[in-house]
Amino acid sequence: MNPVNFGIPSTIPKGAPPVRHYLQFSDLRADEYAYLLERAAFIKAKFKTFTRHQPLVDRTLAMIFEKASTRTRVSFEAGMYQLGGSVVHLTTGDSQLGRSEPIEDSARVISRMADLVMIRTYEQTKIERFAEYSRVPVINGLTNEFHPCQILADIFTFIEHRGPIQGKTVAWVGDGNNMANTWLQAATLLDFKVNVSTPSGYEVNEKIASGPDGIRAGSYENFSNPLDACRGADLVTTDVWTSMGYEAENEVRKQAFATWRVSSEMMAVAQPGALFMHCLPAHRGEEVDAEVIDGPQSVVWDEAENRMHVQKALMEYLLLGRQA
Amino acid sequence: MNPVNFGIPSTIPKGAPPVRHYLQFSDLRADEYAYLLERAAFIKAKFKTFTRHQPLVDRTLAMIFEKASTRTRVSFEAGMYQLGGSVVHLTTGDSQLGRSEPIEDSARVISRMADLVMIRTYEQTKIERFAEYSRVPVINGLTNEFHPCQILADIFTFIEHRGPIQGKTVAWVGDGNNMANTWLQAATLLDFKVNVSTPSGYEVNEKIASGPDGIRAGSYENFSNPLDACRGADLVTTDVWTSMGYEAENEVRKQAFATWRVSSEMMAVAQPGALFMHCLPAHRGEEVDAEVIDGPQSVVWDEAENRMHVQKALMEYLLLGRQA
Amino acid sequence: MNPVNFGIPSTIPKGAPPVRHYLQFSDLRADEYAYLLERAAFIKAKFKTFTRHQPLVDRTLAMIFEKASTRTRVSFEAGMYQLGGSVVHLTTGDSQLGRSEPIEDSARVISRMADLVMIRTYEQTKIERFAEYSRVPVINGLTNEFHPCQILADIFTFIEHRGPIQGKTVAWVGDGNNMANTWLQAATLLDFKVNVSTPSGYEVNEKIASGPDGIRAGSYENFSNPLDACRGADLVTTDVWTSMGYEAENEVRKQAFATWRVSSEMMAVAQPGALFMHCLPAHRGEEVDAEVIDGPQSVVWDEAENRMHVQKALMEYLLLGRQA
Repeated sequence: MNPVNFGIPSTIPKGAPPVRHYLQFSDLRADEYAYLLERAAFIKAKFKTFTRHQPLVDRTLAMIFEKASTRTRVSFEAGMYQLGGSVVHLTTGDSQLGRSEPIEDSARVISRMADLVMIRTYEQTKIERFAEYSRVPVINGLTNEFHPCQILADIFTFIEHRGPIQGKTVAWVGDGNNMANTWLQAATLLDFKVNVSTPSGYEVNEKIASGPDGIRAGSYENFSNPLDACRGADLVTTDVWTSMGYEAENEVRKQAFATWRVSSEMMAVAQPGALFMHCLPAHRGEEVDAEVIDGPQSVVWDEAENRMHVQKALMEYLLLGRQA
Repeated sequence: MNPVNFGIPSTIPKGAPPVRHYLQFSDLRADEYAYLLERAAFIKAKFKTFTRHQPLVDRTLAMIFEKASTRTRVSFEAGMYQLGGSVVHLTTGDSQLGRSEPIEDSARVISRMADLVMIRTYEQTKIERFAEYSRVPVINGLTNEFHPCQILADIFTFIEHRGPIQGKTVAWVGDGNNMANTWLQAATLLDFKVNVSTPSGYEVNEKIASGPDGIRAGSYENFSNPLDACRGADLVTTDVWTSMGYEAENEVRKQAFATWRVSSEMMAVAQPGALFMHCLPAHRGEEVDAEVIDGPQSVVWDEAENRMHVQKALMEYLLLGRQA
Repeated sequence: MNPVNFGIPSTIPKGAPPVRHYLQFSDLRADEYAYLLERAAFIKAKFKTFTRHQPLVDRTLAMIFEKASTRTRVSFEAGMYQLGGSVVHLTTGDSQLGRSEPIEDSARVISRMADLVMIRTYEQTKIERFAEYSRVPVINGLTNEFHPCQILADIFTFIEHRGPIQGKTVAWVGDGNNMANTWLQAATLLDFKVNVSTPSGYEVNEKIASGPDGIRAGSYENFSNPLDACRGADLVTTDVWTSMGYEAENEVRKQAFATWRVSSEMMAVAQPGALFMHCLPAHRGEEVDAEVIDGPQSVVWDEAENRMHVQKALMEYLLLGRQA
């Protein structure tokens, strides 16, 4: 046996675009969002008419879940398949992210074999460390700090139903969490406003939300009364009172959040035709009344579906760049 | 940034056939079964000759497992891949079916992203509630009450080895469970007879088995002695004594079922050339003697393989309708 | 309803090559390795230039994991997808390998539906029993006794960086485990030498390593001092002190292995330009110093990536035979 020296350097594949990550909303520019939203509409139309659109044949998405999720699982996985690609689904037990080996080593290994990585984890620093050592794009599928894919879907859904979001007002009612942080980044970048009303002790941490570029002055306003936050809003949105990882605080939170239930009264002071959104799963009677989430202003099912379409546009963009 | 209103209504995709579910055997008509069985033979022949048959490129099957299963996993998943489609595999931990959100909400969300859903769960009512809110076809991959895909495979296997099942007699020996219920529905619809012998206290519940159309008179007969049930039968079949979910009753059941072990004596009183089937996994020395399941009349491995082929025909039919 | 007898015998598909398994390194001949290594280089070049190479469209790999693993998961799964095929991933809970049914039955069922099986388990006898009853090729993805895919990747990586491995010397420092056993089989077959240094009580079991063909005289040598094993070596390689399944011995092993940490001193007595390899995950400061694994002689990331490429070549070979 005498194989020759193969001469294949283990470098980044030829033809690969420079690596871009999507770790927080501020990682893309406004013009890139304009493109992505248009592209997501194009991609959704293909899906709705059973027209094949498979630019990612041969490409593999590795998904690393430290928190379980139906929506994120199905939207990324089905989305990648529809684009012609494939998916390796690693749960914490499988991936041992940061447990049996340093995150940096996992990043180096996985990014040698997969073309794209989606991570759903706890601390933003974990995904940042992974991205630093990854040869391929990394997408934030939810961290304690940010949830950019969800906000991208929400904005797409708003535009789909109501046209441009520029100059509009979004009311955020409830926890000053990763969703709230991401809305602030989006408002800064895409020129709309967020009215925020959180219980005392659950305020948005502006330092976290700021990201590298800061928060645009006037892009958000705090209201102690959620009804005031909803006044004149074009979109009212909220989230569960107890996000994953905070279950121990459940009872304390139930008391603190009691007034922050999105109700018909809140919808009544919003703009006529204001939309209601929720990233799901929802607890009717806690953060939202059944008559709101199941009522005519609710677009939560479109919102859930649109996760898939915007993420398809995002994955295509990160791997192939702008398409003609 | 100023994207236009995209004008894409989030409705059912154009070109989608009316949604049909497969929750129990009675959900399809006899003429549909005739088509499906022929089609499964066509599809199996493709597989056996390595001939590509990929009508479901671009389509995604979501599988929701509340009970683990090798056979159901592999048969659906490999089957869908062979048809050109893809699969998202959700276990209970992932899918939180009815736990962290109402089943109805899960159905609405998942059926926006996947094209087809298979569910393996406990109560039939769970799958019915899911189906009611699903935009896409739902397939019963096993419930406490029914196991239609398995019986479809068994009938296919019988026909493959012995020709038409019309007018033939199937002996069911053992637990009056989901398999037994489904055999009764099948006998009603496809014009054969089932001889049922169960221990006292484990009888078939005719009310459950009936389904919306009832049980055909003369389609089944109870025998207190399993040997009598096997007399003259063309097919003898059984199942484990303790199905998943009933492990606590294991010892009690072992005593109650002791006489309901399929033996050479039982096979000897059946028709010459009678077949033996078992949906597996099998426990030799409990519900069946080794010399039967490993003997010449046993077709259990064909039966297992045929799960895949009939399910491929079923999935194709539910998504695309009858093929020329 | 009157379907005809379909006439499809449930035999091995037509056109299938004779079934070959890959359970230990000695299962292939030297000329087959020469082919595989060249082929892996061809396949890697396709990957690196984004050139589609999909000979396994329609084929399904079933992966059965009784031990979790990131590298094995991603390398086999992404590799199979890149070849155009698909993957069913069964964990122990899913596959119930040998628990709720005999391994032989699982083998018969799974090999009726999948085209190829990869198993990561404990005892080599388990994989052997599975293979005996499997209609399709079975690949060892790690057992207590052997890890042939990893050594194939290591040899590929050596050749890629340094040319032919014939006549060269590999220093194995540490546990006389499955990796060590497999290096011995490889040295016998591919005409190189292994210097082995293990702590007392952790020696290589030559009887296990021998395989059916025995160990070539002079293919390996034991050294009580790891520094002596590294002297003049072209490749220094090691593994974690406590492999999966031996966690209870962790503290005892830490003491026993303290001197078997691969250090700069060891690399200094090896050949100039000697490589360092590690199958990962690595514990810096235990079995290897950070300055070695993160230093210029380390090729551990190439090694990890190459798992995927050699396994793609292997899967193609087992399913389709030698390609022109």
